[in-house]
Amino acid sequence: MSGRREDKVVHLRTRSPELGIHLLAEWYGCPRSETLRRADTLRVVCVQLLRESGLQVVSSLFEQFQPSGVVGTLVLSDAHIAIHTWPDTGFVALDFYACHDTQNSRAAVSRVLAGLREVLRPVWVHTTEVNRGVTESETSEP
Amino acid sequence: MSGRREDKVVHLRTRSPELGIHLLAEWYGCPRSETLRRADTLRVVCVQLLRESGLQVVSSLFEQFQPSGVVGTLVLSDAHIAIHTWPDTGFVALDFYACHDTQNSRAAVSRVLAGLREVLRPVWVHTTEVNRGVTESETSEP
Repeated sequence: MSGRREDKVVHLRTRSPELGIHLLAEWYGCPRSETLRRADTLRVVCVQLLRESGLQVVSSLFEQFQPSGVVGTLVLSDAHIAIHTWPDTGFVALDFYACHDTQNSRAAVSRVLAGLREVLRPVWVHTTEVNRGVTESETSEP
Repeated sequence: MSGRREDKVVHLRTRSPELGIHLLAEWYGCPRSETLRRADTLRVVCVQLLRESGLQVVSSLFEQFQPSGVVGTLVLSDAHIAIHTWPDTGFVALDFYACHDTQNSRAAVSRVLAGLREVLRPVWVHTTEVNRGVTESETSEP
């Protein structure tokens, strides 16, 4: 794999802007860093990035798995983040769900993901974007 | 909305079976129950359903929002669940990510969701199924 390969982004279901946005990211080829391996380090990095992006962390839960690997979740006032790391293969599965799909929330999500990407340095990124919730017309009777 | 309307299920990206499976569910028209409103009640219900389905809960984090609404996450040994409830509108956004897409994990996820659905009783359900991780051929150079 080369570092120059372009990211792949898949967009699913464009809906009205008041609905939620969910990014499902797969990051490949992350170097075996302390942040990838250690729950406490990854938690500090995530909380700091969220705060710097103006997002309020209500609480977080990070679990260390043996021999290595982390599962972490962060609850925000109107969002959640979940991250799974596999240091042996350099794979990371990352979720960011924001209940409201606004320009502000999109900008904040982008800042957090860009910051975390700088830290974990994946070689290749695959992102699926899903709008959560469906419009009124879809929930009413046909 | 009528209770007889058929569920809508969207399947995205079918991949090899060793990769993860992620269900993103939107549940509409849930009655305003204690389980929908109260973080502690919802946590007990989720943990019990997971245990009954043979899944090991490592830890959980449930936050009560005011005036009502819950955000909860549960970390499992190779999975996570996230749930957001809006009691005022009867809307629930539910995520279940299992790192390995096996027959066993699919059966367990189905049992948990079926059990939770019996408790929260949504009128209409929209589920998006995303296979997480991409195959080796997609991560190698073209």
